[in-house]
Amino acid sequence: MNRLTGLILLSGSAPSTTNIHYLSGFTAPDPFLFLKTSTGGYLLVSPMEKGRAEKQSTVGTRVFTPQDLGLKGKKTWNQVEQIRALMDVAGVRRLQVSHDFPVGLFHTLEKKGVKVSVDKNPTCPERKVKTADEISRLRKSQKATAAAMKAGIAFIASSGIGSKKDLYIGKEKLTSEMVRQLIHKTLIDHDCAGVETIVAGGDQATDPHERGYGPLVAGESIIIDIFPRSEKTGYWGDMTRTVCRGPANPELKKLYNAVKAAQAAALKAVKPGICADDIHCICQELFQKRGFPTMEKDGKHVGFIHGTGHGVGLDIHELPRVGKSGEVLEVGNVITIEPGLYYPGLGGVRIEDTVVVTETGYSYLAACPKKFELL
Amino acid sequence: MNRLTGLILLSGSAPSTTNIHYLSGFTAPDPFLFLKTSTGGYLLVSPMEKGRAEKQSTVGTRVFTPQDLGLKGKKTWNQVEQIRALMDVAGVRRLQVSHDFPVGLFHTLEKKGVKVSVDKNPTCPERKVKTADEISRLRKSQKATAAAMKAGIAFIASSGIGSKKDLYIGKEKLTSEMVRQLIHKTLIDHDCAGVETIVAGGDQATDPHERGYGPLVAGESIIIDIFPRSEKTGYWGDMTRTVCRGPANPELKKLYNAVKAAQAAALKAVKPGICADDIHCICQELFQKRGFPTMEKDGKHVGFIHGTGHGVGLDIHELPRVGKSGEVLEVGNVITIEPGLYYPGLGGVRIEDTVVVTETGYSYLAACPKKFELL
Repeated sequence: MNRLTGLILLSGSAPSTTNIHYLSGFTAPDPFLFLKTSTGGYLLVSPMEKGRAEKQSTVGTRVFTPQDLGLKGKKTWNQVEQIRALMDVAGVRRLQVSHDFPVGLFHTLEKKGVKVSVDKNPTCPERKVKTADEISRLRKSQKATAAAMKAGIAFIASSGIGSKKDLYIGKEKLTSEMVRQLIHKTLIDHDCAGVETIVAGGDQATDPHERGYGPLVAGESIIIDIFPRSEKTGYWGDMTRTVCRGPANPELKKLYNAVKAAQAAALKAVKPGICADDIHCICQELFQKRGFPTMEKDGKHVGFIHGTGHGVGLDIHELPRVGKSGEVLEVGNVITIEPGLYYPGLGGVRIEDTVVVTETGYSYLAACPKKFELL
Repeated sequence: MNRLTGLILLSGSAPSTTNIHYLSGFTAPDPFLFLKTSTGGYLLVSPMEKGRAEKQSTVGTRVFTPQDLGLKGKKTWNQVEQIRALMDVAGVRRLQVSHDFPVGLFHTLEKKGVKVSVDKNPTCPERKVKTADEISRLRKSQKATAAAMKAGIAFIASSGIGSKKDLYIGKEKLTSEMVRQLIHKTLIDHDCAGVETIVAGGDQATDPHERGYGPLVAGESIIIDIFPRSEKTGYWGDMTRTVCRGPANPELKKLYNAVKAAQAAALKAVKPGICADDIHCICQELFQKRGFPTMEKDGKHVGFIHGTGHGVGLDIHELPRVGKSGEVLEVGNVITIEPGLYYPGLGGVRIEDTVVVTETGYSYLAACPKKFELL
């Protein structure tokens, strides 16, 4: 990017919202503009965001309101006029936009004579490699996740088993919702917000994105997947454990042990220079060898039906992907390793940790025991 | 839209994500495609989302995975190939995209020979007028909001006042964070998730989007703005109250009474057929008359520095806007009425309710007392 070219980002779509957060330190619920030039960043926010933007934005970011740039009347909130005014104050003549920039606004800019093109490169490739500051923020979020996980598992462990295998807390049937509420409250105590946390038992757990509802049952696998965002820093945590209240049948235990072994093998392979695809293959091969195939059965995809992991940062899913991505791991990547197996009739198992890639391998962001049967 | 044209939406940007939710009943954390044709809707989701998508999607929506459409190998996750396969199965030849569609993917579609243009019309203008079902969902979210508001206010009211005007719960100083945590926990008990809830006192409250932090102080206005999303339905609530622990000085009381009067006057004007601008003007004029001007002072915008309200639904901010929008209210609109005044040194006051426009005027979605001084 030369001196006369700027990259304009509009918040409200992925990944521009978090790219702006990363580049400027600022984020807001309503759409706002950020112009990146070779010399710095320019935020355009509403008057009522200005104070907060000035406080939160990083060095090198200048904050403007439309009024500061001389926009008046109907022009004040016209995005084309705002972008033009930002270009003027920054002294740039040509614009690039990110891949996720809204096509409608792009066409309007073109029509109004703005020289604009789509930047072929990802906006913040450097986000893949976390700074020490970011790792410490991610560690805090992951510690909150582990605390909530332990609370949720202890709650299930404390339940009584009724005659029909229903679980009870006192006289009340234990439900996915009750466990989820406890987890979310624990996250709040750690300044994190949990949304869509998964507590899914039995066949519900065989649908990896089913959040889970209704009574939990003894002897079935229960997947708990917690991925909260820090209200303070915006960074996410991500962890999954699978438990079974009371004894599990031998086939379900075999399923659990296969996933546990796959996660251990995958983690062992994590180090700088390895291709993420290889880590994914390790899990695939181990499952195949242990007699847990991935296939379509009765119109449903069963087995290992998702990737092995993903990057975690200001987005819950970001680069590098740990699947068939061709990406090579680097020191400072923060990734999840989360193999899983899903067979309706038998159950679902997933075990996930978030780790940082180090010189010699990897390091957990937070520890949490892996124990299947809660007896 | 004719039989051979389809509208393609990609989740991940606003407002497409919630438009897909509205049209199909389905939503997911990761990007997915939805094709709307003259005869129905077509969801394209990953294999692991298929079960949930089939359960949650509305009548007339067909659910596919890339594999169902015959995509294999590298083509499986290529969005252009996915869109082409969806067009084939739906029998459409031409595509429209929404205004917020990513420009990068739009250009790739064009390059690959897909006949594609930007739809000039908003995707779901009907979202402005809520159905009875939607109103009942919004009412539930707003009742949760009111319950959390009452809990938060009762907590502040229960605090003791120390010799230096600090507030205490037992021996601990009462902070914004403590009130926010209690509010978020109460929301969880009502199946709602609160994020970025504002509990801001003193000069913090003069920055309308400042969330608030640190110790709260007696005799200062404290703005509490709660806007949770139902985890069950996806619909939002929105409510603001301003309180003062202990007596307020006469000038601060005047400020509060002006905002309360403005909200009452604005609400009185709400009815079908009125232009939203007129409601905004009522607040502006009342503030002017009572000696609370809107202006720039010491580089900061003070007074009534935001709109009077906004629509609430699957998005926290949606149409119709109650500001200088030119929009005419209709029966079934669900809007906030939330005038506010902000003067550093004196304090900030905002009072907000969410109401539904009825044949004869308006009706609160949930009730909650408005009382300033907590003595």
